[in-house]
Amino acid sequence: MTPPSLGELTEQLRRLPGVGPKSAQRMALHLLQKDREGAQRLGESLIRAARMTRSCLRCNGFTEDEVCGVCLDGQRDAKLLCVVESPADMLAIEATGMYRGLYFVLMGRYAALDGASPDDLGVSALLARVQDGLVAEVILATNFTNEGEATAYLLQQRLRSLGIAVSRIARGVPIGGELEYTDPGTVARALLDRQNLKGGQG
Amino acid sequence: MTPPSLGELTEQLRRLPGVGPKSAQRMALHLLQKDREGAQRLGESLIRAARMTRSCLRCNGFTEDEVCGVCLDGQRDAKLLCVVESPADMLAIEATGMYRGLYFVLMGRYAALDGASPDDLGVSALLARVQDGLVAEVILATNFTNEGEATAYLLQQRLRSLGIAVSRIARGVPIGGELEYTDPGTVARALLDRQNLKGGQG
Repeated sequence: MTPPSLGELTEQLRRLPGVGPKSAQRMALHLLQKDREGAQRLGESLIRAARMTRSCLRCNGFTEDEVCGVCLDGQRDAKLLCVVESPADMLAIEATGMYRGLYFVLMGRYAALDGASPDDLGVSALLARVQDGLVAEVILATNFTNEGEATAYLLQQRLRSLGIAVSRIARGVPIGGELEYTDPGTVARALLDRQNLKGGQG
Repeated sequence: MTPPSLGELTEQLRRLPGVGPKSAQRMALHLLQKDREGAQRLGESLIRAARMTRSCLRCNGFTEDEVCGVCLDGQRDAKLLCVVESPADMLAIEATGMYRGLYFVLMGRYAALDGASPDDLGVSALLARVQDGLVAEVILATNFTNEGEATAYLLQQRLRSLGIAVSRIARGVPIGGELEYTDPGTVARALLDRQNLKGGQG
């Protein structure tokens, strides 16, 4: 009853994360009813992005060139290398406006249960990357999920022997967070990792 | 910092209903990280659907031909014409498996505040459609929202003079619904529209 091209579009929209059959149908009908030209443009963008983006040879993030703009930026501090799981995490760090070092994007996380091996993560690419003679500190900024923690642990093991400082971003109560509504693990970590205050006895 | 084709894709994904900047970014990165071939296929589906679907000359729904499969189906009862707002509503009625008449799809609803005129709704196409000499009853199945009700009222006014029976689908407490959690307007309507039971005194 549904025209084949509409049925196919609905099916294909379900590839998008978080889109179930009902939303896919709603999206397909919306585009055809109200934004046909937009459907065309979105289609072209998808094809263009899939064809043009590739992995940066230095940071493994997305780029359209051999090396991305961040890696080529001479103003950045080549001594600091921040390791993140995904380009979205990199954007989150860039959004702070206070990190001026470089990045390495794992494009995944170590998940033994999924059968992902450390090499799927480009761990060997990372090990090669950090040995450029410039990197002095690797900041592990994987997420504080089980997989992100496992990934950080794995990377720490591999990096240890290279004589490069390895750090992990801080855990604690988020800004605006209330202890009452923060999970006990986070509160415990915030206590353990408490910071001396300037002017205090410490 | 983001490659242009990725930025453009993220922007274009925001056309989809219910997709904000964060979800659009998540979708774009997901496709490029894990489903590049899928991105290509989704892109092609969008372009194909936007090019190939058009309005059925009889019911105004989507089709790839001049007249859609439902309108061409000789098994359907041409005396009944069910008027719906969108193809999704038509699918909802088809999903019941108990309607064997034909449809007319408004592709919208009457919303005076949006400046939509009755003619944007294809009301004149509907008036022409019902005068095919076969339609005996028009069933108004627009939604029970303010706009859907206004649309039903408008259509009823226009159809009145044509000497064709006009009905409206029933309002009431939904199957599985509990009076306690049903809005007072619906309960009131369910009382007013109560049905005599077979074998009762009525």
